[in-house]
Amino acid sequence: MNYLIEIGEKARTAATALNKMGQSDKNKALMKIAEILKENAAEILKENEIDIKAAEENNVKASLIDRLRLTKERITDMADGLIQIAGLKDPVGEVVSMETRPNGLQIGQKRVPLGVIGIIYESRPNVTVDAFGLCFKTGNAVILRGGSDAIYSNKMIVKYIREALAAVSVPEDAVQLLEDTSRETAREFMRLNQYVDVLIPRGGAGLIQTVVQNSTIPVIETGTGNCHVFVDESADFQMALNIIDNAKTQRMGVCNACESLVIHSKIAEDFIPLLAKRLFAKNVEIRSDEVGKSICSDFVSASEEDWGTEYLDAILSLKVVDSIQEAIAHINRYNTKHSETIVTKDYDNSLKFLNEIDAAAVYVNASTRFTDGFEFGFGAEIGISTQKLHARGPMGLLALTTTKYIIFGNGQIR
Amino acid sequence: MNYLIEIGEKARTAATALNKMGQSDKNKALMKIAEILKENAAEILKENEIDIKAAEENNVKASLIDRLRLTKERITDMADGLIQIAGLKDPVGEVVSMETRPNGLQIGQKRVPLGVIGIIYESRPNVTVDAFGLCFKTGNAVILRGGSDAIYSNKMIVKYIREALAAVSVPEDAVQLLEDTSRETAREFMRLNQYVDVLIPRGGAGLIQTVVQNSTIPVIETGTGNCHVFVDESADFQMALNIIDNAKTQRMGVCNACESLVIHSKIAEDFIPLLAKRLFAKNVEIRSDEVGKSICSDFVSASEEDWGTEYLDAILSLKVVDSIQEAIAHINRYNTKHSETIVTKDYDNSLKFLNEIDAAAVYVNASTRFTDGFEFGFGAEIGISTQKLHARGPMGLLALTTTKYIIFGNGQIR
Repeated sequence: MNYLIEIGEKARTAATALNKMGQSDKNKALMKIAEILKENAAEILKENEIDIKAAEENNVKASLIDRLRLTKERITDMADGLIQIAGLKDPVGEVVSMETRPNGLQIGQKRVPLGVIGIIYESRPNVTVDAFGLCFKTGNAVILRGGSDAIYSNKMIVKYIREALAAVSVPEDAVQLLEDTSRETAREFMRLNQYVDVLIPRGGAGLIQTVVQNSTIPVIETGTGNCHVFVDESADFQMALNIIDNAKTQRMGVCNACESLVIHSKIAEDFIPLLAKRLFAKNVEIRSDEVGKSICSDFVSASEEDWGTEYLDAILSLKVVDSIQEAIAHINRYNTKHSETIVTKDYDNSLKFLNEIDAAAVYVNASTRFTDGFEFGFGAEIGISTQKLHARGPMGLLALTTTKYIIFGNGQIR
Repeated sequence: MNYLIEIGEKARTAATALNKMGQSDKNKALMKIAEILKENAAEILKENEIDIKAAEENNVKASLIDRLRLTKERITDMADGLIQIAGLKDPVGEVVSMETRPNGLQIGQKRVPLGVIGIIYESRPNVTVDAFGLCFKTGNAVILRGGSDAIYSNKMIVKYIREALAAVSVPEDAVQLLEDTSRETAREFMRLNQYVDVLIPRGGAGLIQTVVQNSTIPVIETGTGNCHVFVDESADFQMALNIIDNAKTQRMGVCNACESLVIHSKIAEDFIPLLAKRLFAKNVEIRSDEVGKSICSDFVSASEEDWGTEYLDAILSLKVVDSIQEAIAHINRYNTKHSETIVTKDYDNSLKFLNEIDAAAVYVNASTRFTDGFEFGFGAEIGISTQKLHARGPMGLLALTTTKYIIFGNGQIR
């Protein structure tokens, strides 16, 4: 435990210093880090090779090895990401409101860094640079706990970030990596309330649930997405097909991809054959209720479990409903509060869907794939929150800040 | 566990209905509840008498029995509180931003209820009405878990609230009371993530820590306050004395009362005798470091533990420092991130204090006692958050809402 307390103390000290840094100094540091990462790409690749070899020896799946693998180009992309972050507006210091009370007290709310942020993530070493960059830009010290598979890569990346920080006289402890990647240390880390203000898990559903179940530190839950497209009876068929195709197939393995369709029964007979044609051409398997199957015999039977499954694969569940009310009830029951869309031409139904669906992002006539910090215009994204506290939906720099009340008086007492 | 799941399901169903209710229907219900509580005051007092008797038999402290005790006047106050809440602006439904992206998508952020809120509290039965009122006003269903000492009072109060809701055709499950007040059920309740969106503990430090340590549901930590007054070298002595006197003695047992003084060494010899005179007149014990004691021999010696103690009593710790930097470091080390004030005439020091102190509310030249939802102009308060996520400082109705993104498209795909 002493190991973690030492890291916690160092992070707190760094956070105090970062809180006093202005935008230009922070941006200068980000540019310096980008430069040093590019200069030392070969060294980072050498360490990454060790991680890759170990993964191969452990017969890790090819797709996971691909996530773990760095290339010169990927390192350049990571570094360029920092340059982009440097170019964004820093939300810290903004006074979002200021009011004078009847007794003359001037009460304002000012944006400030969260303090110390813990990031728990899996094997992608690019998260190391990316998460650090966003936390640093907003004046937060960060403690990174990456996966053991990427430890050699992460150690080398963090070493160069710290070198670059030192070179521009910024406390190196603005970033620290937990080199002890044991589960026990991770669990202790999740209870380090005295030093860590917020914990953000980034990874699959298993990782996120482990953090939610074990952390006593406030967590921002980033999300799995069981996203639905509801095709209302008044939908434009061509628009519906385009949106479904895009939401399902443009990128399968992401949280804002569509996993389930809900079709109004009044159009089911006309629409479903067109849908089958469009998706079968892209080798998507459709798991349907009985009504759907009676229209297209090539559909597979859906089980209860299918309604709640995030496939992240070329599979889609399909349910036929008799009303928008039934569609909303079905979606609210099985969704993961991520992104939901209705395709409709009906005014009342569009508003009803927007009002009654419980999700971070609710769409009318657009693909769920837009739920993304860049698409929303934030210029960056630390994750997509599916919880309701603090931040909901794509989280940009703002989500990495809090506010404090600043109060100007001249002797007021109660 | 079935008991809690049933309660959770009912709360979810009620939350769905509340989400669709307009302001005027919610306000009508609040007025009806106020009326019915007043009409049935005698019945409530009868049940309260059972709780009081049990407490007396268990030799509960007089101050706690006073918190537990209802009177006709207190019930009228509770009911009038609901009428006041009815008069406040409902934040739900406000679209706080709406932007058109380059692809034509209109992306807006709309305020919506949190959903289901759990409140865990101690023996004060007025919290039952108060917490329900604020949650209901913002369209949330609430599950109340009060202390076992107040169970008869709470059951009767909740019975009448539900009767009033039914009388105006609002789902009674907008409020539910956990009648099983065992610790085991409380612990299971804290892990009911599937049904409860947020947990708010209201009570002493022990209760709050139990919730923080055991809950897997996101918690809003409301706070203990180890609040400081720093008397800078340029302070107006009279103002400093007034602020200290007010912050310490106007009400001792509250979280925004002052618990610790920090005095600049340059003025210590002149200021401390005045301070001692002022506070000794009110029977305040002062626990001081050695420098302070050398100036006033009537001070008690402070131990390391004193710096971190929230006395909630006629005791104050005192430390002499040589610089504002030392003052800030001392406060940031020992405070509970609640409310801190500097008394100064110096421009640079006032800004330095505002910028560098890590607390929910940072004051210049005013009493810490103002950290309060009513004093801040919110018209209501559910608690004072000392955490950094979601809400920080006094929490009014806004803190009981979240946002969702609403997106208007016309066929956009990626």
